[in-house]
Amino acid sequence: MSEPLQQLKERLADIENMRAATAILEWDQQTQMPPGAAESRARQLGTLSKLAHEMFVSDETGALLEKSAQALNGADYDSFDASLIRVTRKDYERERKLPPSFVSEMTQLTALAHEVWAKARAEDNFAAFAPTLKKIVDMKRREAELRGYTDHIYDALIDTYEPGMKTADVAQMFNGLSKELVPFVAAIRERVDQVSDKPVHQDFDEDIQRRFAEMVVSQFGYDFQRGRQDRAVHPFCTSFSCTDVRITTRYERDWLNPALFGTLHEAGHGMYEQGSALELDLHGLRGGTSLGVHESQSRLWENVVGRSRGFWTHFYPKLQAEFPAQLENISLDDFYRAVNKVEPSLIRVEADEVTYNLHIMVRFEIETDLLAGSLTVDQLPEVWNAKYHQYLGITPPNNRLGVLQDIHWSGGLMGYFPTYSIGNLLSVQLYEKAVSAHPTIPEEITQGKFETLRGWMTENVYRHGRKYDPTELIQRATGEKLTPRPYLNYLKRKYGEIYGV
Amino acid sequence: MSEPLQQLKERLADIENMRAATAILEWDQQTQMPPGAAESRARQLGTLSKLAHEMFVSDETGALLEKSAQALNGADYDSFDASLIRVTRKDYERERKLPPSFVSEMTQLTALAHEVWAKARAEDNFAAFAPTLKKIVDMKRREAELRGYTDHIYDALIDTYEPGMKTADVAQMFNGLSKELVPFVAAIRERVDQVSDKPVHQDFDEDIQRRFAEMVVSQFGYDFQRGRQDRAVHPFCTSFSCTDVRITTRYERDWLNPALFGTLHEAGHGMYEQGSALELDLHGLRGGTSLGVHESQSRLWENVVGRSRGFWTHFYPKLQAEFPAQLENISLDDFYRAVNKVEPSLIRVEADEVTYNLHIMVRFEIETDLLAGSLTVDQLPEVWNAKYHQYLGITPPNNRLGVLQDIHWSGGLMGYFPTYSIGNLLSVQLYEKAVSAHPTIPEEITQGKFETLRGWMTENVYRHGRKYDPTELIQRATGEKLTPRPYLNYLKRKYGEIYGV
Repeated sequence: MSEPLQQLKERLADIENMRAATAILEWDQQTQMPPGAAESRARQLGTLSKLAHEMFVSDETGALLEKSAQALNGADYDSFDASLIRVTRKDYERERKLPPSFVSEMTQLTALAHEVWAKARAEDNFAAFAPTLKKIVDMKRREAELRGYTDHIYDALIDTYEPGMKTADVAQMFNGLSKELVPFVAAIRERVDQVSDKPVHQDFDEDIQRRFAEMVVSQFGYDFQRGRQDRAVHPFCTSFSCTDVRITTRYERDWLNPALFGTLHEAGHGMYEQGSALELDLHGLRGGTSLGVHESQSRLWENVVGRSRGFWTHFYPKLQAEFPAQLENISLDDFYRAVNKVEPSLIRVEADEVTYNLHIMVRFEIETDLLAGSLTVDQLPEVWNAKYHQYLGITPPNNRLGVLQDIHWSGGLMGYFPTYSIGNLLSVQLYEKAVSAHPTIPEEITQGKFETLRGWMTENVYRHGRKYDPTELIQRATGEKLTPRPYLNYLKRKYGEIYGV
Repeated sequence: MSEPLQQLKERLADIENMRAATAILEWDQQTQMPPGAAESRARQLGTLSKLAHEMFVSDETGALLEKSAQALNGADYDSFDASLIRVTRKDYERERKLPPSFVSEMTQLTALAHEVWAKARAEDNFAAFAPTLKKIVDMKRREAELRGYTDHIYDALIDTYEPGMKTADVAQMFNGLSKELVPFVAAIRERVDQVSDKPVHQDFDEDIQRRFAEMVVSQFGYDFQRGRQDRAVHPFCTSFSCTDVRITTRYERDWLNPALFGTLHEAGHGMYEQGSALELDLHGLRGGTSLGVHESQSRLWENVVGRSRGFWTHFYPKLQAEFPAQLENISLDDFYRAVNKVEPSLIRVEADEVTYNLHIMVRFEIETDLLAGSLTVDQLPEVWNAKYHQYLGITPPNNRLGVLQDIHWSGGLMGYFPTYSIGNLLSVQLYEKAVSAHPTIPEEITQGKFETLRGWMTENVYRHGRKYDPTELIQRATGEKLTPRPYLNYLKRKYGEIYGV
């Protein structure tokens, strides 16, 4: 190996280890840390992220990258070394674009904004949040200029979460979705009483909930030898190596869904992280290539698998055995319908598979107009409510249940929302590709067997870690670009049958 | 504040935060980490400790220290700034003395030695360990030369655990102890049947054990808002700030002592760490000043308080209420005697208060002779067994229960053992000083009240963190040097009464 490449790898290994340590401290903060330790933990995280960032964006890293690239000139595109240089150069250029003074200004603004937003939401007072949100929009515009773009200013922001994805691609995706989804949702809205979710609203012992969900994800292939599950107020998945990938969940005693489907969801993220090839572990190439591809895996295992009739054919008798008093008189069909109830509602995080993407579309349209300057912050509540009426047929009675509901904008996260919909679409696109390669998959699911499905995902998605950017990965795995067609067909087939529309 | 002092403080804060992160990763490794993550964790710890060490021993730190010292010339000895410079300079000089090549050689040797020792102990084969132990003794001699000493070569090693303590001081301490302890132990050995420990060997539910012990240490003043307790195979206490101090314990279902007295012990360490003044938290002055002073606090709360008749007068009825079937027919007196059973035995970690220091004395005498060259590794088993016969009246039947029992030497820990005895002696010396200042303390203990005792320890020991070295701290707190007299009197009074000798 060339001397600069060796030095680069050692440097990147140190940076990866510092970032892993940061993630461990954050996991601990969310799941284990005693309440009195908040200030000291903030200091520790500050030092770790500062040192890792300084080490990464230093001129020395840049020089080693250039020398290594020259030494590797002509190396196989798919090789580990060529991929390391290609991906790390992009990361390096991306991180160098924002000067430290800008990052620090943004950190201070969003720290303050979080408090302002939380208070404004609690008091249902949009006017109290508006001045701060204006500052954030201004800073995101400055950020976009610093990052650079060719077509739409919003491109610069999407690119930080979904490298290579353009505003025009996302707009086209939502266009394709909404044409068919809006009337489909309207038709279901006429028949919401066809499905009752009473079966999942009963008293369920938390420890049994935990055992059952952990049994299911173990069968999926989430490896507890290289992971664990803990409680967290806002569940998440995090990883410090492909050998240490941890998930979290929360329990509601009178509602089965949060812990059950939440665990399936986080385990989907977890299997993606655990599936990285071991050789990617040391220098920052492990893990998911983008938020959207990551979300495709959480939604695949939560919804496409975990809310399917085949899945419950196998697992419902086991769940009944765990909760006989609650479930023995409820049929498989009624339970299947209960976990798939659709109802246009105001809150994104509680939305079902059918309406979820319409919630996202509202936010995407608003964000692009805000960034482009064709919409002002003061107009937001009115525009928000009009779009909810237009797409979902309901109107928020106040801003707390409307434009103030999400934490994202107060944290400076703009360009992030589309990744949720990209994940939804991609979950079905990848699943159908896997089934066309292995037609036995649906039958295996009805037997509680998931090796074939997980094996295909590992081969085509997981093992590559961050080697390929999302557009490249999707093309390689499915032979085409991201498309809403499979997802639309899936929704219409599944929910057409459930609701008779 | 002078510019160099400000820069120094920022640098030391980063180093302290890196070390805290290292400790968090180690805590996680012992208590939470999935088994598959061992290799990745070793890499992460390697990076963190390497970077923290490099940052600390750099010439830049040295230059800032010197400039800050000049700027502070004449500052009050007890002030924070003067203490920071004084202590940090000593740390800096100590860490600079060993070249990286030596540290790396030692790390490799001890990593290997651990495996060799574990195998040799399992197979009761001292000859298999002897060649490795010879290498370790040679390296410890080289280390002592690098560190420097004036009187005895062993001084250089003790100093790393107990700054300022000399071989001659420790020899004098053991001399004072053994003259009275050896005959005292011999007298008790004639009457071991006077006390039965059957009461603590019954079936005790683990969760009730945990609740009871946590209730007790909460009353001591261990703060669960700034701490927590978890399970660990080898219990320990660790801290990442005075606001985040965690203890661990282990449970045996058929033996009350490990979890109960273990929790009291670790909480003693924990209260010391939690008691550091908040201003010491940022730059590396928090925590305990030495292993010996630390051990004085664990032994104080475990033994001087937790194995006293006054303590059980208050807590035994509560323990009986938790375990009625096991304890309702056992009197307070029989229970008190059971937790204070003395029996000369072969294994140090299972030794009682009376015999413990004789185990340590054996090791101290052997270590000093090994370092001085008056004893060879090959002579060890014979010398070990002779000393056990002489001091404790028993002879190990094999080396597994003799010279091979401790992990310390395989890890290069020589000069460490005396800190256990220093802690024992100091626990009583400090306790008696507290009682002479507040004569109500013994009575308060019988009422389950500990504020006065903990308040005195906080005022005289805890709050100072690492500001004063141990000899200085002991002199300030007790008005005299470390002395075995109070501890000997305490043992003879307490166990003379129990055993009638």
